[in-house]
Amino acid sequence: MSDVAPSNGPLAIVCGAGKFPFAVADAVMRRSRRVVLFALAGWADAQEVARYPHHWVRLAQVGHMHRLAQADGCREVVFIGAVTRPSISQLRIDIFTLRLLPRIIAAYRGGDDHLLSHVARIIEQLGYRLVGAHDVAPEILVPEGRLGRHAPSTRDEADIALGQALLSAISRFDVGQAVVTAANRVIAVEAAEGTDRMLARIAELRRDGRLHLPDKVGVLVKAPKVGQDRRFDLPSIGPGTVAAAAAAGLAGIAVEAKGAITADVQELVRAADAAGLFVVGIPPLQPTRGEP
Amino acid sequence: MSDVAPSNGPLAIVCGAGKFPFAVADAVMRRSRRVVLFALAGWADAQEVARYPHHWVRLAQVGHMHRLAQADGCREVVFIGAVTRPSISQLRIDIFTLRLLPRIIAAYRGGDDHLLSHVARIIEQLGYRLVGAHDVAPEILVPEGRLGRHAPSTRDEADIALGQALLSAISRFDVGQAVVTAANRVIAVEAAEGTDRMLARIAELRRDGRLHLPDKVGVLVKAPKVGQDRRFDLPSIGPGTVAAAAAAGLAGIAVEAKGAITADVQELVRAADAAGLFVVGIPPLQPTRGEP
Repeated sequence: MSDVAPSNGPLAIVCGAGKFPFAVADAVMRRSRRVVLFALAGWADAQEVARYPHHWVRLAQVGHMHRLAQADGCREVVFIGAVTRPSISQLRIDIFTLRLLPRIIAAYRGGDDHLLSHVARIIEQLGYRLVGAHDVAPEILVPEGRLGRHAPSTRDEADIALGQALLSAISRFDVGQAVVTAANRVIAVEAAEGTDRMLARIAELRRDGRLHLPDKVGVLVKAPKVGQDRRFDLPSIGPGTVAAAAAAGLAGIAVEAKGAITADVQELVRAADAAGLFVVGIPPLQPTRGEP
Repeated sequence: MSDVAPSNGPLAIVCGAGKFPFAVADAVMRRSRRVVLFALAGWADAQEVARYPHHWVRLAQVGHMHRLAQADGCREVVFIGAVTRPSISQLRIDIFTLRLLPRIIAAYRGGDDHLLSHVARIIEQLGYRLVGAHDVAPEILVPEGRLGRHAPSTRDEADIALGQALLSAISRFDVGQAVVTAANRVIAVEAAEGTDRMLARIAELRRDGRLHLPDKVGVLVKAPKVGQDRRFDLPSIGPGTVAAAAAAGLAGIAVEAKGAITADVQELVRAADAAGLFVVGIPPLQPTRGEP
């Protein structure tokens, strides 16, 4: 087996929940590079993990991970998959990590970007190169333009533009990466609850008669924050997002092209077509005027 | 009984849900001015309404309300109390209103400010003066500074400042009037769901282990939008808000002094003191740099 980046050895893939880690591992292996999965206990899917070279690790056991990665000759690391923000007390911290504790605690004071940039710095200080999942597996990036059979209407286009403008305005606050707009109104803004719960809330408001909208009105708009470190936490969509958006009565989903990831674009398109929703890849956010 | 504004006749108070309409009616009557309540069927509290001169009306029966107000000699109108945005089909539209229908439908296309400014224009075109509840009953405005026994900590002050900055940034999008910040993070942004449901969401995220924060951390920050027509829909708080904020594990509530209303400030203070939460009246939002 040839190795396209032999000097970097196998790619270390630190795996959170969901299908993304395996989509990335498969894409990297298709390029004839070896992978080693560092499966996060409590998050990674054990059945899938077993199909690849792997180690089971805990999030805060940086020392343990570091020794394993050195033994395997890994020089490059990818973080991929959902990891809900754990409480410090939930982490089982090893002795090596203990020395990093003041920095980790500092990282907990602030938004997600703040936390992730600290993690990146710690990993780089250990001598690894932190790369984005989409750098090693570009096929997970959502392409530009209309993806499935359905297209946004003129009204949907206006809702998309409103959603993008709002996301630009809140970008510097390190809030969420998604909003829902409908008929020129902002219906929901994502923060700590995540996209799925935000969409469930809209379905509930409609059911309770607190939100009156015709069916198939409204758009979920997702985009990474302006200036965000794209090696972490790009917004993601999948068939589950389509199902939640359909349950919320929306017309479709707009995500930043090449700024959002999906584990299997064909599966996404099939789900959207079946649900009668559009999915489009839209241009990146523009920074709001007057910002630093 | 002397009437301080005889040329304007009795004050017409269009009453939605909750206690505010009666707090306003009592305050106006204390100033020796007569009131006539136009109680909105489905929203106004029937038992309370019965204590005042009143008519029962339906929201979309503008013609009916207009005739009654003319017969009573009303020249000034106040809108007060919660009215969830009804669907157009729920409205029982009278013939007079029918002529206004194109304008009402136009008003439905857009955010709340947009809707309310249309309502204001329609009322003024009928020859009435639309006044703010706080103009005729200034005692319902939240005063400046600390209201109860508890005061915000330095960390709470930082959360308040973050919340105000975010509210300023989203103000021009006609979203909500409230956010929750905690330990320098934005936890929730209110849109169509309203403050109570936003606070319930935080309680739920904490219960489900999706949000890890020590108890008594975080602030509910509420303020009217920059440039909003203050005759309508000033943000409101009360003992119910205190209970919901306490259930969400927050440290306190910060609302714009003289930019938010409360039906009974003493009752608010008692609830906050009992729950161990601070309530402060804060200075108004500053428009975000670089805005039109």
